[in-house]
Amino acid sequence: MIVIMERRASDDQIQQVVKRVEELGFRAHLSRGEERTIVGVIGDERPLSIESLEVLDGVERVVPVLHPFKLASRDFKPDRTVIDVDGVRIGGDEIVVMAGPCAVESREQLLETAWAVKEAGAKVLRGGAFKPRTSPYTFQGLGIAALELLGEASETVGLPIVSEVMSASDIEAVSKYAEILQLGARNMQNYSLLHDVGKTTKPVLLKRGMSSTIHEWLMSAEYILSNRNYNVMLCERGIRTFETATRFTLDINAIAVAKQLTHLPIIIDPSHGTGKANLVPSAAKAAVAAGADGLIIEVHPNPDRALSDGAQSLRPEAFQKLMAELRQIASAVGRQM
Amino acid sequence: MIVIMERRASDDQIQQVVKRVEELGFRAHLSRGEERTIVGVIGDERPLSIESLEVLDGVERVVPVLHPFKLASRDFKPDRTVIDVDGVRIGGDEIVVMAGPCAVESREQLLETAWAVKEAGAKVLRGGAFKPRTSPYTFQGLGIAALELLGEASETVGLPIVSEVMSASDIEAVSKYAEILQLGARNMQNYSLLHDVGKTTKPVLLKRGMSSTIHEWLMSAEYILSNRNYNVMLCERGIRTFETATRFTLDINAIAVAKQLTHLPIIIDPSHGTGKANLVPSAAKAAVAAGADGLIIEVHPNPDRALSDGAQSLRPEAFQKLMAELRQIASAVGRQM
Amino acid sequence: MIVIMERRASDDQIQQVVKRVEELGFRAHLSRGEERTIVGVIGDERPLSIESLEVLDGVERVVPVLHPFKLASRDFKPDRTVIDVDGVRIGGDEIVVMAGPCAVESREQLLETAWAVKEAGAKVLRGGAFKPRTSPYTFQGLGIAALELLGEASETVGLPIVSEVMSASDIEAVSKYAEILQLGARNMQNYSLLHDVGKTTKPVLLKRGMSSTIHEWLMSAEYILSNRNYNVMLCERGIRTFETATRFTLDINAIAVAKQLTHLPIIIDPSHGTGKANLVPSAAKAAVAAGADGLIIEVHPNPDRALSDGAQSLRPEAFQKLMAELRQIASAVGRQM
Amino acid sequence: MIVIMERRASDDQIQQVVKRVEELGFRAHLSRGEERTIVGVIGDERPLSIESLEVLDGVERVVPVLHPFKLASRDFKPDRTVIDVDGVRIGGDEIVVMAGPCAVESREQLLETAWAVKEAGAKVLRGGAFKPRTSPYTFQGLGIAALELLGEASETVGLPIVSEVMSASDIEAVSKYAEILQLGARNMQNYSLLHDVGKTTKPVLLKRGMSSTIHEWLMSAEYILSNRNYNVMLCERGIRTFETATRFTLDINAIAVAKQLTHLPIIIDPSHGTGKANLVPSAAKAAVAAGADGLIIEVHPNPDRALSDGAQSLRPEAFQKLMAELRQIASAVGRQM
Repeated sequence: MIVIMERRASDDQIQQVVKRVEELGFRAHLSRGEERTIVGVIGDERPLSIESLEVLDGVERVVPVLHPFKLASRDFKPDRTVIDVDGVRIGGDEIVVMAGPCAVESREQLLETAWAVKEAGAKVLRGGAFKPRTSPYTFQGLGIAALELLGEASETVGLPIVSEVMSASDIEAVSKYAEILQLGARNMQNYSLLHDVGKTTKPVLLKRGMSSTIHEWLMSAEYILSNRNYNVMLCERGIRTFETATRFTLDINAIAVAKQLTHLPIIIDPSHGTGKANLVPSAAKAAVAAGADGLIIEVHPNPDRALSDGAQSLRPEAFQKLMAELRQIASAVGRQM
Repeated sequence: MIVIMERRASDDQIQQVVKRVEELGFRAHLSRGEERTIVGVIGDERPLSIESLEVLDGVERVVPVLHPFKLASRDFKPDRTVIDVDGVRIGGDEIVVMAGPCAVESREQLLETAWAVKEAGAKVLRGGAFKPRTSPYTFQGLGIAALELLGEASETVGLPIVSEVMSASDIEAVSKYAEILQLGARNMQNYSLLHDVGKTTKPVLLKRGMSSTIHEWLMSAEYILSNRNYNVMLCERGIRTFETATRFTLDINAIAVAKQLTHLPIIIDPSHGTGKANLVPSAAKAAVAAGADGLIIEVHPNPDRALSDGAQSLRPEAFQKLMAELRQIASAVGRQM
Repeated sequence: MIVIMERRASDDQIQQVVKRVEELGFRAHLSRGEERTIVGVIGDERPLSIESLEVLDGVERVVPVLHPFKLASRDFKPDRTVIDVDGVRIGGDEIVVMAGPCAVESREQLLETAWAVKEAGAKVLRGGAFKPRTSPYTFQGLGIAALELLGEASETVGLPIVSEVMSASDIEAVSKYAEILQLGARNMQNYSLLHDVGKTTKPVLLKRGMSSTIHEWLMSAEYILSNRNYNVMLCERGIRTFETATRFTLDINAIAVAKQLTHLPIIIDPSHGTGKANLVPSAAKAAVAAGADGLIIEVHPNPDRALSDGAQSLRPEAFQKLMAELRQIASAVGRQM
Repeated sequence: MIVIMERRASDDQIQQVVKRVEELGFRAHLSRGEERTIVGVIGDERPLSIESLEVLDGVERVVPVLHPFKLASRDFKPDRTVIDVDGVRIGGDEIVVMAGPCAVESREQLLETAWAVKEAGAKVLRGGAFKPRTSPYTFQGLGIAALELLGEASETVGLPIVSEVMSASDIEAVSKYAEILQLGARNMQNYSLLHDVGKTTKPVLLKRGMSSTIHEWLMSAEYILSNRNYNVMLCERGIRTFETATRFTLDINAIAVAKQLTHLPIIIDPSHGTGKANLVPSAAKAAVAAGADGLIIEVHPNPDRALSDGAQSLRPEAFQKLMAELRQIASAVGRQM
């Protein structure tokens, strides 16, 4: 960390900062500029809070030098993480597409979608059993019944499942049927839940919070990794901005930024990232071109009858057409799909 | 709801929308303008998702007419809700100040702060036992031990306690010692937890998510109310914007907006809303002038030794001085403190 | 427009709204729902301000039905606009790349860059003469001398020029040497300047304001179009969000949204859209895959000596490599480059 | 400035940074930490762009130490600036209220408003002659005719005028009738115009751009100050955020932050800062309590007939009532009004 002193900081205030730095177990390094004195903090600053120094008299600002995440960083692990999910390798050369309905609604709906997405080339089946909904008066998911249907669909069609956990009490049930535990955007900083999925051995798909910075996203991954679950994939799903023409703003820059900072695979969700079915193909293609390791896409046989997220769900035919286009782009950027 | 059709929507597409509206149990009302046809949806639209209609062919946009929240609305309950916490009335004419350390660190720290804030006029003691922290490597709160200390401080000093619950498993323990359950900003859309605190009889302080709209905040309150816990107070604590000079941007407009929309009391947190102790007084005074029903303020006897949020904690003397200033403003706007 | 009345609006208030709508030269259409009455406004609402009705007693909200832009809309002109710049067709099947230095610094710098970008396949040379800079103490551009150098480079290398106008007084001089007038993000709502470039016959590259919605961007285009200059191309260059890892957040969704709303060509600026040279390739590839009609990219032979925007400028070799990759993606989406 | 090297930066890369720092006329100060080497840049860094160093090989990040503004800073001028406008002192102990219609529409409208606001205690009359409007199809202001009416109203009623300049060509005419030149939010980074008003001797009211940081706002003030016009007052008028319940989010924190950074007076515009007349009183009261030096408020005798901004304009009676309330709060915070 670097402590920037106020212009008029007294020698005594500077000495107090040096003393406090040393008390905290670090070495201090003084540098006097023309208008400001700077105190460098030498040592592993990660467990140190900026505030411990910011609060001292005469301090103007404290700037961290190191990223606050360690296990998630490329400094710590330069090689890319590849996660094996029942033989599907996520984070390698192949771009993996996960697809399926927002929520499981019935056996027919699920199986019809599952066959369709498999045929089009999806490698993982998505489907929600427990649904986080802004209104308590709308469909909340079929719960355990949905999980059983997912288990059945997985066996019948031969695709592994990704499904969301909303609380600690869901983990056991979801783990029984799903190969990947999804952590939703609204729970990205639910630290109890991060801790709990970190104690499992299941791969985790960690969605970025809609107003979380990339650094905070990696810190949430760090919670899972530091509990010894190393199979985390990051999922960008649109951030909240002032723009109202789309439900969210897909942060396409996040792909390249995250790839520089971390070794974890990056998945893009163009369905939530746009909020409208007719914008999904453009966003999906952009994601593959930008270097994403995978996509997660909502598909529904009858979007106008969907109990949730119909407006952003592709029909099976549209999904199949999109997959063909994505393969062209994957090949143009030197990857398989 | 109002369905705005595309300019080139065919008669058949319009008829399909009317048909679907009727299938969903509503009446449809057609209005043909010069460039667009509009279909009005007559009936209680709240359980209806915008997407069920948005997804139909020829539809350009769907606009909700009613607010999605009901129990939280002034339409439903015109009179203001006043919550009684051990004789402290929140939401009435008096402005209630809750104060204390961000986290409970030790008996000495807690008791010293508790006496100081009580003497200065605070009516509720705040203190965290379970702390949501962005980094897994920093202080996570003392847990149960902190709750026991809060119980002791409450009895000794004679102030009721507000303390945060981070997961369902915390509710029982926190309820044993605290009179008000706090739901943190990062958990505002943790629907499992909203559901669970809705099943208790304890008053809930519901912090606004840092990127949640006022409507979403009221929908989260609706989750609690619809589970029959009617004692919800809303807490604005700063939203995330592009501005980096402050940790968050305190949304002062939210006070007047929320008071128009809902009957629930509005509390302001100037500590998180600014992130810096020397900005807290200005924000606190603004909040009282703008019509807040209460404040929640972080106070620590030694901010430079605080294990969390030191930079935004007031020293007891600064808090006492602020309280005197706030009383003047409360009186200027016709309220007591 | 649709006027949504308050729940408790009286019959008299409703009649006042109807009367006002008629006074303003529109017809009113009443629809009484279960909880709200709605007044539809029939007629071309574009010249009508929402506020004229919003301000009436008993009105809760006014919702526009039509987009506020007309000449820029696909409703008005369904076919795509193709702009011919010295034989370079922008908005057609070919993806056009404009490239060059942020600012013209010297004859050598400009010519070296011009030859390099031409060889790599760029079709337009960019270069700033008048530079909008946040600090009055940094390089402000060479002005007229830069324009003369641009004119010389254009003749020597054989590429048309795009260069920025910062005020009305620049228009004549810039028009003498440049084929495309650039209007910068910070001037997107400089209505005097929009009016003035609308009076010229030069194609205009209109950058999106860093916090302007897509609708506002199209309204600024409308200013130019309504002054009878129909050759406007839109340029997305990143919006301001809470994320600090990049200088701006490139709004990749804006491409597909704008293509639905307008017939004007869409250009993407991945240099400003990311702010870092090593993020430019990923963003540029995403833009082509998402359907952009062109790109504008900063290239400098010695970024570490650049007088402005060095950090986001590509070296000529990096630009050449990128162009080869972009050609692959253009081909994968069925376009030429 | 502080240059943070990458973890794996070579000694040669570090030496190149040191060499470049020295070439640029600064001294370099090396500090080797456990994981990173840091190069301090000693000297007045303000004319130096971050990018000149950021672009060098092996550099991870560059952090400025000094604020980029100088003349606007309290470091440069610790005493508060008080601006005298025809005997009205802005920036002193008195809180100054400027009020009047958004746009001048007619002699009657203007005079009626002018008498009303003067009687209620306003000290400056506001009124727009040149109006920046998002749509080219709506009222654009009466121009010179409006200025003449403002001149007449000023003489008749005895209040100095504040009115907006939209381009260089307006300055002379506006200066003839107005005592304060207003620079609108959309022109905050119109550097040509900043330069031009900096060359006048008229006090300037500089509105903050709707997505400009406080630092950028002060940099725009610096443009004016560095052209030797030292009479700049800053005006916060709401920033753009994700919240849609209000037109803008009034950044109440900006008052205390700006007062720490600069000696210039801070004015608050609660009309634009909320966008709705019924939210203006709450915001205005908050601003006075938070320490604003003045307010600028839109007042119109018939808001429902206003040609612009009717929805956020107070009627004269509401304004008078608000002024009485504001006086109470001013007195509670030890100021006059």
